[in-house]
Amino acid sequence: MDRAKALALVKEQLTDKRYEHTIGVMETAIVLAGKFGVDSKKAELAAIFHDYAKFRSKEEMEKIIVDQNMPKQLLEFHSELWHAPVGAYLVRMEAGIHDEDILQAIRFHTTGNKNMNILDKIVFLADYIEPGRKFPGVEDVRKVALENLDEAVVMALRNTIKFLLDKKQPIYPDTLETYNTLISYQKTS
Amino acid sequence: MDRAKALALVKEQLTDKRYEHTIGVMETAIVLAGKFGVDSKKAELAAIFHDYAKFRSKEEMEKIIVDQNMPKQLLEFHSELWHAPVGAYLVRMEAGIHDEDILQAIRFHTTGNKNMNILDKIVFLADYIEPGRKFPGVEDVRKVALENLDEAVVMALRNTIKFLLDKKQPIYPDTLETYNTLISYQKTS
Repeated sequence: MDRAKALALVKEQLTDKRYEHTIGVMETAIVLAGKFGVDSKKAELAAIFHDYAKFRSKEEMEKIIVDQNMPKQLLEFHSELWHAPVGAYLVRMEAGIHDEDILQAIRFHTTGNKNMNILDKIVFLADYIEPGRKFPGVEDVRKVALENLDEAVVMALRNTIKFLLDKKQPIYPDTLETYNTLISYQKTS
Repeated sequence: MDRAKALALVKEQLTDKRYEHTIGVMETAIVLAGKFGVDSKKAELAAIFHDYAKFRSKEEMEKIIVDQNMPKQLLEFHSELWHAPVGAYLVRMEAGIHDEDILQAIRFHTTGNKNMNILDKIVFLADYIEPGRKFPGVEDVRKVALENLDEAVVMALRNTIKFLLDKKQPIYPDTLETYNTLISYQKTS
């Protein structure tokens, strides 16, 4: 699918502000894909579609999680996490994207996953560091992302976990598992 | 078992410094038990024996974890975590303590557990706030522990998880699960 077609499809699904964020994620993902030798077309499409399900109702997302046998545990956590796996499903069904690499990057982009591959890490980080993001610490992650993806993902996860702890929000187990896995790679490498 | 006998048994197992810490944990646990209506004798014995296995060799602890079918995942994490479940086992076998409440409080005292009961929380917190502990934030947890055990455990877990994140150390999944469970209690209560 070409970029214009993909952008037209997501534009219908998103607010203007979220669409602008999506453009930032797309541009960032393409830069990172070039840097780390990943198929830039896959990075582009995964980035364009990463928030496809962001504005679906909780009811619709809950139904898809149950009907499609996604991890039930998701329902015990904040619905903010649901749009990623639900998005991977809807992008396949509604936009006709069947490339499993692209769908997995969409699926993992919010919580992370211990089995993240390079494309998954690129989309996860592009979402975190795209130019519209302004929170404290983002500039450090931007710099490191161009040098060391794993280190940048660890920094992003650490910031996110601390933010959730300070807000007394629950932390999804996959997020912790991603952190534990990536720091163990760094120690053995 | 009376206090003098229990203290004599653990004194043989510990350094002087760790024995002094144990006395602090015992005194703190008794205060908290009185405050929260828990059997103070159980709190006393669990506190006295909580670090019983602290100075056993990694090899001995690893063998016990494997032979006694403790969670294999423990072996993927820092050996600092092993003395708690291994201690519960050795306190039963060597000190002849068979009270499951006491053994469980020893088992859960380092990582926490989503099924912690009041005694478990008291021993976990007494270990964290006994008078010999001096780290930043401990005074806040000391105050809250006398008012709200769950809130104090959440504060302690939050400090511990942040400390581990800053050190790039792994975080045991039970610790996160304890945090997630206790904050959910607070929201629904």
